Amino acid sequence: MPTLLVTLDLVGIFVFAVAGALVAVRKELDLFGVLVLAGVTGLGGGFLRDVLIGAVPPAALADWRYLLVPVTAGLLTFVFHPAVGRRERAIDVADAFGLSLFCVVGALKAVEYGLGPLPAALLGMITAIGGGMTRDVLVGRVPVVFRGELYATPALAGAAVAVLAERVDSAATEGALAGAAVCLVWRLLAIRRQWRAPMPRGPASV
Amino acid sequence: MPTLLVTLDLVGIFVFAVAGALVAVRKELDLFGVLVLAGVTGLGGGFLRDVLIGAVPPAALADWRYLLVPVTAGLLTFVFHPAVGRRERAIDVADAFGLSLFCVVGALKAVEYGLGPLPAALLGMITAIGGGMTRDVLVGRVPVVFRGELYATPALAGAAVAVLAERVDSAATEGALAGAAVCLVWRLLAIRRQWRAPMPRGPASV
Amino acid sequence: MPTLLVTLDLVGIFVFAVAGALVAVRKELDLFGVLVLAGVTGLGGGFLRDVLIGAVPPAALADWRYLLVPVTAGLLTFVFHPAVGRRERAIDVADAFGLSLFCVVGALKAVEYGLGPLPAALLGMITAIGGGMTRDVLVGRVPVVFRGELYATPALAGAAVAVLAERVDSAATEGALAGAAVCLVWRLLAIRRQWRAPMPRGPASV
Repeated sequence: MPTLLVTLDLVGIFVFAVAGALVAVRKELDLFGVLVLAGVTGLGGGFLRDVLIGAVPPAALADWRYLLVPVTAGLLTFVFHPAVGRRERAIDVADAFGLSLFCVVGALKAVEYGLGPLPAALLGMITAIGGGMTRDVLVGRVPVVFRGELYATPALAGAAVAVLAERVDSAATEGALAGAAVCLVWRLLAIRRQWRAPMPRGPASV
Repeated sequence: MPTLLVTLDLVGIFVFAVAGALVAVRKELDLFGVLVLAGVTGLGGGFLRDVLIGAVPPAALADWRYLLVPVTAGLLTFVFHPAVGRRERAIDVADAFGLSLFCVVGALKAVEYGLGPLPAALLGMITAIGGGMTRDVLVGRVPVVFRGELYATPALAGAAVAVLAERVDSAATEGALAGAAVCLVWRLLAIRRQWRAPMPRGPASV
Repeated sequence: MPTLLVTLDLVGIFVFAVAGALVAVRKELDLFGVLVLAGVTGLGGGFLRDVLIGAVPPAALADWRYLLVPVTAGLLTFVFHPAVGRRERAIDVADAFGLSLFCVVGALKAVEYGLGPLPAALLGMITAIGGGMTRDVLVGRVPVVFRGELYATPALAGAAVAVLAERVDSAATEGALAGAAVCLVWRLLAIRRQWRAPMPRGPASV
């Protein structure tokens, strides 16, 4: 991978890992729990994708920087969690950048492994949201992406744009940028305007 | 796969997906959560099997019909959930057909990938119940298959019959049908007569 | 694998499976739930490792003894759970032996599959604690390894020692023994002296 992409990737993992570590602190987990949740949130989506497309062992396991970044993020959050916790809005915005990056990178990696456009877009979304979902399951709460937060749809849209653009011209990088932009703008608007995903209407008969 | 088997497979996935979407509606998840739980319940067991036997990427990712069916089931359940929820008994019966199909198909796929009879039967059961188990974990409840519902044992029995018959004559389809019949009859009787799985006796010392 | 190692491995799986089955009984799961939790706790860590390093189907699926042992442990615990539950201290000590064995065996298997020292040590830890974590998620509780119990750190340390020793001399078995000893002594001291993992300081701002 080119250096710029690796740097972006590591920044995205760092941001995700901070968000995951903060959840762990609030659930009163110990240091190990904080580090694991940082790692799971930062790397889990990529692991899920790699296992599903057969790219094992996952790339993150072969590169010590990918293990060092979430550990650092977890340690910093463990120590400075009161300060980190007060900057939640800033974390949400940074998280939107990570989401945009991961949905595109994940989808293009799936294309590279021979998957069609529809499953590739789906795997892009899984890359972007899989870490947070696994984190939520580990701390025993229903994943936030299921509870009205508009988070997964922008990721799916961004992944779809990137995949379609790749089919038109596989060498151009504009498509990847367009995909990331679609996801980013949509997600930031959702945060700012508090857009919510549609809920089922009427009472559920049990 | 022959057309008849694909059709049956898609029908089974549809039924499982409706049952999964209904759980999501009752847990008050948003549209995305309903679609994910439909997909996880319909396809998750097959994904688990494919990852464990090394058949990645899972077949369902290579065929758009396998993605379209759970999305359709999820959307229909999202919109018409009051009507769907009142037909729970019918869903349970349809679900028994899906269970019978998946345990046999899953076990025979494991045999095809070189596994012995015992692990193949186990993977047949995992194919049949894995989606529902993953769904339950995602919404934060203990899987229903652990709580007295007689569901996994018929699937294991059906898978075992199919695997043993395959060893006797690998070309005949009667064995697969016999396996599915064993699972179906046992499961339908369990529903009708409210058979329960054995529970531990006496108080658990904590 | 040499016979001694297989025997040790099966004993470790048995102990883990008993601990898992006991959790299931206390959560009032049915017989099937008890057997699944026995299997998941005994074999889950190895499955996670094998899926991540691409060693599928997992070795345990190819050897009926690896399936028979957790089933036997589950059945015995199901029937004799009051007596088993009163021996929790003994189970904890036996569990420490299993932990020490699995972290070393898991790490060395990862080395064998070409992973570097850092990810190999991590996979050793995952092998040792992954089954218990999956068990806890299945019964809807936050994994005990996240809640102050000093359990994962000894496993990581033991795995690291074994991996480093393997790099110095890949033929010697002293390194593996040293790794297991580090994990075992640390874990037993943690049980006896009630050492706890560090917790975040100060209130978490929500």
